[in-house]
Amino acid sequence: MEFSRLTEAAVPDYLQALPAMHARFSSFAALDVVEVGDGNLNYVYLVTNRLVPTETVVLKQAVPYLRVVGESWPLTRHRMNIEIAALRHFRSLCPEHVPEVLHADAERSLVIMQRLREHRILRGVLLEGQLFAHAAEHLATFMARSLFFSSDFYLSPQDKRQAQARFINVELCKITEDLIFTHPYDDSPTNSYNPALPRMVIDRFQRNPRVRAAVGELKFAFMTRAEALLHGDLHVGSVMVSAHETYVIDPEFAFYGPMGFDVGILLANFFLGWCGQSVRGGATAPATQRWLLDSAVQCWEGFARQFTMLWEQHEARDGFIGRDLDGHSRAAFREAFMRRVFADSLGFAGCEMVRRVLGLAKVADIAGIAAPQARATAEMNALHLAERLLLERGTIGSIHEVLTWLQA
Amino acid sequence: MEFSRLTEAAVPDYLQALPAMHARFSSFAALDVVEVGDGNLNYVYLVTNRLVPTETVVLKQAVPYLRVVGESWPLTRHRMNIEIAALRHFRSLCPEHVPEVLHADAERSLVIMQRLREHRILRGVLLEGQLFAHAAEHLATFMARSLFFSSDFYLSPQDKRQAQARFINVELCKITEDLIFTHPYDDSPTNSYNPALPRMVIDRFQRNPRVRAAVGELKFAFMTRAEALLHGDLHVGSVMVSAHETYVIDPEFAFYGPMGFDVGILLANFFLGWCGQSVRGGATAPATQRWLLDSAVQCWEGFARQFTMLWEQHEARDGFIGRDLDGHSRAAFREAFMRRVFADSLGFAGCEMVRRVLGLAKVADIAGIAAPQARATAEMNALHLAERLLLERGTIGSIHEVLTWLQA
Repeated sequence: MEFSRLTEAAVPDYLQALPAMHARFSSFAALDVVEVGDGNLNYVYLVTNRLVPTETVVLKQAVPYLRVVGESWPLTRHRMNIEIAALRHFRSLCPEHVPEVLHADAERSLVIMQRLREHRILRGVLLEGQLFAHAAEHLATFMARSLFFSSDFYLSPQDKRQAQARFINVELCKITEDLIFTHPYDDSPTNSYNPALPRMVIDRFQRNPRVRAAVGELKFAFMTRAEALLHGDLHVGSVMVSAHETYVIDPEFAFYGPMGFDVGILLANFFLGWCGQSVRGGATAPATQRWLLDSAVQCWEGFARQFTMLWEQHEARDGFIGRDLDGHSRAAFREAFMRRVFADSLGFAGCEMVRRVLGLAKVADIAGIAAPQARATAEMNALHLAERLLLERGTIGSIHEVLTWLQA
Repeated sequence: MEFSRLTEAAVPDYLQALPAMHARFSSFAALDVVEVGDGNLNYVYLVTNRLVPTETVVLKQAVPYLRVVGESWPLTRHRMNIEIAALRHFRSLCPEHVPEVLHADAERSLVIMQRLREHRILRGVLLEGQLFAHAAEHLATFMARSLFFSSDFYLSPQDKRQAQARFINVELCKITEDLIFTHPYDDSPTNSYNPALPRMVIDRFQRNPRVRAAVGELKFAFMTRAEALLHGDLHVGSVMVSAHETYVIDPEFAFYGPMGFDVGILLANFFLGWCGQSVRGGATAPATQRWLLDSAVQCWEGFARQFTMLWEQHEARDGFIGRDLDGHSRAAFREAFMRRVFADSLGFAGCEMVRRVLGLAKVADIAGIAAPQARATAEMNALHLAERLLLERGTIGSIHEVLTWLQA
């Protein structure tokens, strides 16, 4: 079918024709349709019954190109099938942290989802100095459950291969391979640099064989290590929060990859936020900075603790390594495994920090700083940490060590 | 179709009904059919025209169970489809090192191949003290070409995913997961120990959290790292040699896995041979030992050199890491990558050495030593090296360092 984008005007009729929507809306006569317009890839409409504002849904439609670049970067709409399958899968594991799919239309590449009315994007609220006590703990739970239950520690080889085949996502992985692992380092025309950022600082990443080799290894890991079903784009713009709830959205990048990628992207966004806040200053900055550091600790430690607990609870009859004859071997393997995931996470965090400074897609935390010099200071702090994460990821003892560097 | 094993008596009629065989045999009246009977998994017949002995083929049929264990270990015959696809694929890359497929019959799970008349299994000739100057160099070429051309350094992500899907081989991978990575370490009833091997020596592997953790990491790598299409069982019993030629056979374990697995299994078999020879003694032992060490060096160094050369020749337009702005970054990444493959190879070599001593399937090099004490000496030398390879694989500088240990 030729692609046709659903216009705002066409949305009410489209919804009215769906039986599932009659359970959601008492009437279709007064629907407000607002395009959110903040996606890099898709069109997102918020639909609300003006007469009964609690009657509300989100409609998301994939267009056949990368929205943030334009029609010159074509993308198939297969990604919407991935997103729908991933939303359903993640929701089955974490119903309290993933919105419900109300209707999916493969032909039009659109999905209608539960509207999170009182929730806001985590990146935005952090910039306003609003802090949510449970977000990091909830994100740790989401990562532990989503990564554990799709791994070889839980699934049979047969079931895992099937899940892996279902989530082959070559096109969106290519975006990550290019925009995170390649373009920031080879002075690509798609990059954009703060003019106040010294060329020498950029060269430390682009003309540095040690950094380029480290990033190459992480890119290869991203492309070859099918450890678990990842969200694939788990930054603080993919998280919606309210006082008591946390939801993970936008899993169109989902695929089987290295566990540390999801963890690392999230950690990097806390670190980037910290670097931004340290320059922004203002009344809320100290508390926000503390929240960001605490959240980084809680995300890693909470993830590691919960993942290990799930592993212990669901250990196969004879265990992944076989029977534990001395009583310490399983624990030793789990520790070694988590150390490796930690090192990977720090490496991927380094990649995410670099791409958010040098690459195409920025984060408001830093790019939103108006004064170029102040922004450059935040960027240099971020790049300094990123370089250490990339080069020393294998020997960093704990998340607290990283925080010490950040604060130094 | 119900499985029916082709008996020796039925082979001539079966061949005569195949048009392809009329180009091979001038008559079917005097065919000798001999079952080789040395396979762990299959039935293998050598078919020769008594009247014209150059008219000869090999016929290999998969049975629906693991032959070495018996009907209690059922196996689907899907492995024959994998073997046929892998033979054709590897032959397209290395026609001089892989036998030609003459006929494939998916329904009967059999393949008819080029008979290597003058070639013998490498393990056997080594035990007789026959040394072949070119085998290691040829095996290095086979590994470099087969691993490079199936990797992300050569294939597009799309093509690689397709190849990976084609070679999903859950059942045979499970055999490796159990017999190489699990059973030797958990005192499984399938193990068999030389009675002269002290329990304390066995415990150093089975009741040692550091070893068990290292092997767990390698097992996880085997199960999750889709780096290249592996042969999957590249020991010296899967290699046939003549004075000038080397062929790799039996790729039914082929799947997308970590490159170091193929390299490591082969290295381990040279090391195991060395340990056997050091105890066997005899006139040919010193020369054989030297040949085994030289071959280990040639296999690793030849593989690394040829793989790197193919990589340089076929580097994608902008390179895996992107454009090389300082002129040293690609080389730095290649070096880091090969160091990691080397560490993996040594780890997998350690696993193969342990399983050949403690596990179900032995190697004649050591298990064929009649005196239990002498055999135990060879086994302890092998286990000692294996332990160091497992625990120190990440910090070993070169293959020569390993040889120094072996000779110490």
